[in-house]
Amino acid sequence: MSDSSNGTLILLRHGQSQWNASNQFTGWVDVDLTDQGREEARNAGRLIADAGLEPQVLYTSLLRRAITTAHIALDTADRLWIPVVRDWRLNERHYGALQGLNKAETKEKYGEDQFMAWRRSYDTPPPELDDKSEYSQAGDPRYAGLENPPRTECLLDVVKRFVPYFTVEILPRLEAGETVLVAAHGNSLRALVKHLDKISDEDIAGLNIPTGIPLVYRFDPDGTVTNPGGEYLDPDAAAAGAAAVAAQGGK
Amino acid sequence: MSDSSNGTLILLRHGQSQWNASNQFTGWVDVDLTDQGREEARNAGRLIADAGLEPQVLYTSLLRRAITTAHIALDTADRLWIPVVRDWRLNERHYGALQGLNKAETKEKYGEDQFMAWRRSYDTPPPELDDKSEYSQAGDPRYAGLENPPRTECLLDVVKRFVPYFTVEILPRLEAGETVLVAAHGNSLRALVKHLDKISDEDIAGLNIPTGIPLVYRFDPDGTVTNPGGEYLDPDAAAAGAAAVAAQGGK
Repeated sequence: MSDSSNGTLILLRHGQSQWNASNQFTGWVDVDLTDQGREEARNAGRLIADAGLEPQVLYTSLLRRAITTAHIALDTADRLWIPVVRDWRLNERHYGALQGLNKAETKEKYGEDQFMAWRRSYDTPPPELDDKSEYSQAGDPRYAGLENPPRTECLLDVVKRFVPYFTVEILPRLEAGETVLVAAHGNSLRALVKHLDKISDEDIAGLNIPTGIPLVYRFDPDGTVTNPGGEYLDPDAAAAGAAAVAAQGGK
Repeated sequence: MSDSSNGTLILLRHGQSQWNASNQFTGWVDVDLTDQGREEARNAGRLIADAGLEPQVLYTSLLRRAITTAHIALDTADRLWIPVVRDWRLNERHYGALQGLNKAETKEKYGEDQFMAWRRSYDTPPPELDDKSEYSQAGDPRYAGLENPPRTECLLDVVKRFVPYFTVEILPRLEAGETVLVAAHGNSLRALVKHLDKISDEDIAGLNIPTGIPLVYRFDPDGTVTNPGGEYLDPDAAAAGAAAVAAQGGK
């Protein structure tokens, strides 16, 4: 895997969260990892170390399930000391009024078509979340600096906030040959992979990213991806995990 | 405790490490926390939250016992999302050839006077650590950017590297009224407290900082400490902890 002249981007979706386990829409709600999620994070660290990858800088969202996944993975890989950047633009998609709802119950109540539209429509967000909801982030100090914090987002909204951030903040490091670890979320990573692999607005609906398995992209000095589609460090586990994500909404 | 016009500096020595527990000189050796150390970190987070303190930025050393203490404390205080800066200047004092040695055995072998001179002399470092030692940091990638990484340090050496860093990087935030968490080590925090409280080269030998108990200093906008000596968030536990540090070297 090693090629010191090329930049290396390691994408890591957080390990299983409490609401992954209970099958609830999470979005910006700041739930913790489960014990299984922590074990996935340790496994991710071992995969990174075994592949000979040495992350030089870490980017995370502002959500503890990504922050703690990165902490455990880097601790395992003996790279806990690298610089860290946290930014809300790496956050999961804000799931609007769906935040906190059970996925199976939502599917039953609204039907398969509406359920899949909310989950996978590229440009149609769910209804906005009321600021008075217990699952709202209105008043959360971590977003106090945002002029107009979202109350719902579709994947296009995530592309619009994350891809420019990636291009300005992260891509120059990859062009310079650095190894960058990005610890983020199912939909923020889907937004980035859509950009990296030039996936169409329609086809992105079929792309699912499993929890806890590092996905590696290589970059030329001019910023071109040299291994389109990327490489999972454990391809078999990644395929099984992606299938499980696609099947969510079942009981 | 709260005074929004003033800067607040929270100093936190890492919780018990594996070599605190086994009574070994640690220095730059990157040992992990014990379970007790993790519990101390959780307690520190509760103390910070209960005092109404809201850290806005975290500074840590490059050593996992400080990094993980901060992670656990901030997770407990629901401030895991704040920006993080890691810098070697916050590292523990490099203990030179003593790194890895048992404190009680060292005291027995070299005598009380030499033992206390190595531990508490302000300006006399222990012998240098051989680069070939298993406890050496020669070749450690985290220090690859340092022109002349130390092979031993006295407290004066720590003052020389940490106090200028504090003055340039951290003090301006305190003057601006921010709340800053510094997660570091017994001797790097002694070096900083010596500076903040203008403690003499002689008297600093008698100052001991306990693990896991936040020590809070307040700053005027002109950078003056308004509560000399600082305030421990749990004064009784701090007094007991400091006495235990002073007694190290016993069996």
